Amino acid sequence: MQFIKTPVKGMSDMLPADMRLREHVLSMVKSTYASFGFMQVETPMMEHIENLTSKQGGDNEKLIFKVLKRGRDLERALASDPEVLAEALADNGMRYDLTVPLARYYANNKDKLPSPFKALQIGNVWRADNPQKGRFRQFTQCDIDILGDKTNLAEIELITATATMLSQIFSEIGVSEFTIHINDREILRAAALAAGFAEDDIDAVLISLDKFDKIGFDGIRAELVGNGYDPAVVDTYLALYEQAAQGIDCASFSAKLGADALDGRVVSNITEIIECTRDMVPEGVSIVYDPTLVRGMGYYTGPIFEITLDGYNSSVAGGGRYDKMIGKFCGEDVCACGFSIGFERIIAVLKDHLPEGFGLTQEATAFLVSDKASLESKMRTFEQARALRETGAIATVLPMKKNMKNQIKLLEAEGYTVFEKIYE
Amino acid sequence: MQFIKTPVKGMSDMLPADMRLREHVLSMVKSTYASFGFMQVETPMMEHIENLTSKQGGDNEKLIFKVLKRGRDLERALASDPEVLAEALADNGMRYDLTVPLARYYANNKDKLPSPFKALQIGNVWRADNPQKGRFRQFTQCDIDILGDKTNLAEIELITATATMLSQIFSEIGVSEFTIHINDREILRAAALAAGFAEDDIDAVLISLDKFDKIGFDGIRAELVGNGYDPAVVDTYLALYEQAAQGIDCASFSAKLGADALDGRVVSNITEIIECTRDMVPEGVSIVYDPTLVRGMGYYTGPIFEITLDGYNSSVAGGGRYDKMIGKFCGEDVCACGFSIGFERIIAVLKDHLPEGFGLTQEATAFLVSDKASLESKMRTFEQARALRETGAIATVLPMKKNMKNQIKLLEAEGYTVFEKIYE
Repeated sequence: MQFIKTPVKGMSDMLPADMRLREHVLSMVKSTYASFGFMQVETPMMEHIENLTSKQGGDNEKLIFKVLKRGRDLERALASDPEVLAEALADNGMRYDLTVPLARYYANNKDKLPSPFKALQIGNVWRADNPQKGRFRQFTQCDIDILGDKTNLAEIELITATATMLSQIFSEIGVSEFTIHINDREILRAAALAAGFAEDDIDAVLISLDKFDKIGFDGIRAELVGNGYDPAVVDTYLALYEQAAQGIDCASFSAKLGADALDGRVVSNITEIIECTRDMVPEGVSIVYDPTLVRGMGYYTGPIFEITLDGYNSSVAGGGRYDKMIGKFCGEDVCACGFSIGFERIIAVLKDHLPEGFGLTQEATAFLVSDKASLESKMRTFEQARALRETGAIATVLPMKKNMKNQIKLLEAEGYTVFEKIYE
Repeated sequence: MQFIKTPVKGMSDMLPADMRLREHVLSMVKSTYASFGFMQVETPMMEHIENLTSKQGGDNEKLIFKVLKRGRDLERALASDPEVLAEALADNGMRYDLTVPLARYYANNKDKLPSPFKALQIGNVWRADNPQKGRFRQFTQCDIDILGDKTNLAEIELITATATMLSQIFSEIGVSEFTIHINDREILRAAALAAGFAEDDIDAVLISLDKFDKIGFDGIRAELVGNGYDPAVVDTYLALYEQAAQGIDCASFSAKLGADALDGRVVSNITEIIECTRDMVPEGVSIVYDPTLVRGMGYYTGPIFEITLDGYNSSVAGGGRYDKMIGKFCGEDVCACGFSIGFERIIAVLKDHLPEGFGLTQEATAFLVSDKASLESKMRTFEQARALRETGAIATVLPMKKNMKNQIKLLEAEGYTVFEKIYE
């Protein structure tokens, strides 16, 4: 029999210490969003292959773990022509994000749900990506979405709740300072048009602008000119951002684009979001208007936001408004705004900075019982363990091992501090 | 674009009320077992196809959702001979239970884990079974295992912890009476041999005895005789059980098998387990020696147990000792004893008997904000919501919908009792 001890490539076994940290973070996520009225939902981890390949998932559609058909369906599929065989073999796939399943869920259940619906979804997703440090083939996502709210109450509640939650989580490692970057797709669009780019160029131009953190303005200039755009237009475009790089408010940046470049409501909307959230977020959290924030996914339609940990050079959450996407799935316009938390990223940062033994908050006693112990003393031991549990402590009754020193060492690593030895 | 609104066949969307119940039960499961020293672990939901098809999974191996190979591996597989094509296409599969992954996990990580290791594993499993009421293709399993303890401390801790947990869960619906049935595979074996069956007949005889609840002694007799067994042997065999049906202790039943039929340690072991757990379990829980208890899975090697809810005619948890199985996976004997909780069964029983609105324990206020409200009154509203949250209540800020009556009705169903309307 061939038996493979290691997990499937790119997927992880979670040790008890891993689980303590993950459960701790999850409990903070659940309780904070619950207090803001978000309701937990769950969708099956397996989804129709048609839904997963409907062109809403971007590059993730190339990374699907497909599920083989079964029984007669499989037999029929195996008899397909060679050129369509690969396509015919799968009926389901493992979800690669939580957004496609949420769209299906909402289409399927919306009559039973309040409107707007504030959803919290936590669960595993799978991507057949090349595994590397911090990138897994099975990982946990955590999405918070408000469906059916076209007002900026949605953005304000999302940003406030997420900042509150992160502030609580990172206080464990003494980090209270992070920055929420806010921008709007409409302003990004208007800036590109104002500089002289054509409507059709906008997507490509934003792909370059999105690399600002990595390659800077010089890199963007070289890339855009290299891609054949008019150097004069590129210079005009980047000049808008270079002057803004030191911190600028949304109204001032928009004014530079010209009088008719932008609907005034876009600017007042962002200004209101920034003003309200500044008032609401915990101390240490900065809210900045960031004209260079792009957010990769093409489906955003309005405000976009991203949270970075000061000094850690990493984004721990991002999101925005995507008013057109759910409609594409369920055939009826549903405005939507959401945040996706980088759960695995947060766990990785915490793991690097938490003291050993984190999460071992309860008192823990191990009773080590020799095989010479009498029935009476075993019964007394069980009673003692019960009495400890009733005080909220952890108590375990274990056989005493020959190598008791090593047994105790491993138990100490899991938080046991009291060892009662029962010899007879 | 083809978009399918319903979940994949046999899998469920969880509504907020479903999630409240599931999370509530899970939190009781986690906290009770934690107090007994069980440590939570997680394994990937996808497993090597070799491990899933290693003949340890019984009939479940026929129900695997297999995962299609990708990239060049898939291309190579597609070029296979037709007669091996179906076999060549999958490299992974979705796990059908938590036991196979636990065996792999233990083999992979045992040096980092205490010994004995008390594991709690909660997670989804998948079976391509025919869906029917109460049977799903994706469902949650909840397994509690003690690895590396050959003594009956393992059985006693498992039974005590599980009884404590169930007692707590079912007190929500006023059910405090349930029964823990205990037997031993060795006694089942000895009884069949004592009656005159051959060693090779034991598995088949036990399959019939296992149907006692459904077909009674007459049904078993007809089945065994129908299968060609000597009617005299069958009568001798069933006489042992018929006399015992009214309640018998382990020592008395074993004595009927004859002096040398059984190692005395088997009887004293079961007697000790029953005596200790009777002392430890909460009021209302009966512990009975049940000579007809078989438990389906062939891998059990010693004590077996099952918990039934009095009056509900359904088993809500079952388990036993399986000292040979982990060794078959990891190449080294590891004694093991475990309980599997019927999580979906428990949820179904609770769902049928809980009052509507169960789990809505926090006070909840919804602020409904008209689109005519000023920025000042919105900011005041956010502040009020924050103040409520700081008292531990739920507060949500939502746009007022045109059909406010329906909006409020749906919010009331999710536990909102206070509605503040902000008109300007």
